[in-house]
Amino acid sequence: MADEENTVFIGGKETMNYVQAVMMQFSSGSDEVVIKARGRSISKAVDVAEITRQRFMEDTDITDIITETEELDNDEGGTVNVSSMEITLSK
Amino acid sequence: MADEENTVFIGGKETMNYVQAVMMQFSSGSDEVVIKARGRSISKAVDVAEITRQRFMEDTDITDIITETEELDNDEGGTVNVSSMEITLSK
Repeated sequence: MADEENTVFIGGKETMNYVQAVMMQFSSGSDEVVIKARGRSISKAVDVAEITRQRFMEDTDITDIITETEELDNDEGGTVNVSSMEITLSK
Repeated sequence: MADEENTVFIGGKETMNYVQAVMMQFSSGSDEVVIKARGRSISKAVDVAEITRQRFMEDTDITDIITETEELDNDEGGTVNVSSMEITLSK
């Protein structure tokens, strides 16, 4: 697992913003970038990984994908389960 | 890769419909079920895999996840790239 410096968290911005963030991590010397997402952002995380490796950095590839279930607090004082994903892109 | 019989395609139905479909595949004798999704359905595919292995069938686990970029025709006669994912759940 990479440390937080090599991690890009996927949120509500446009997909290409995150592709740029991944490429900046690689160009600043990382050999590995971890793309993290939760819930509906997971689809965008896959787009970011695919666009990066297919269109912009063909010397990178997906070397690991893991999924988990995270238990988050909801507004009613209970918990809700949310899927999360980490995609590792490596040079 | 499993053959089509062992495959569950994720579409617009409720998540639990697909969890049931996966469990039916296992209960009909499959040792491996492949969950396939494209685009925004990818997040739901991860939910289906996580709910199945964490809540209903704890003897199953995710043994493989692959992503691809598929080129689909659009309405204007051009093409559009869409990410796809295949998650393999195994007993």
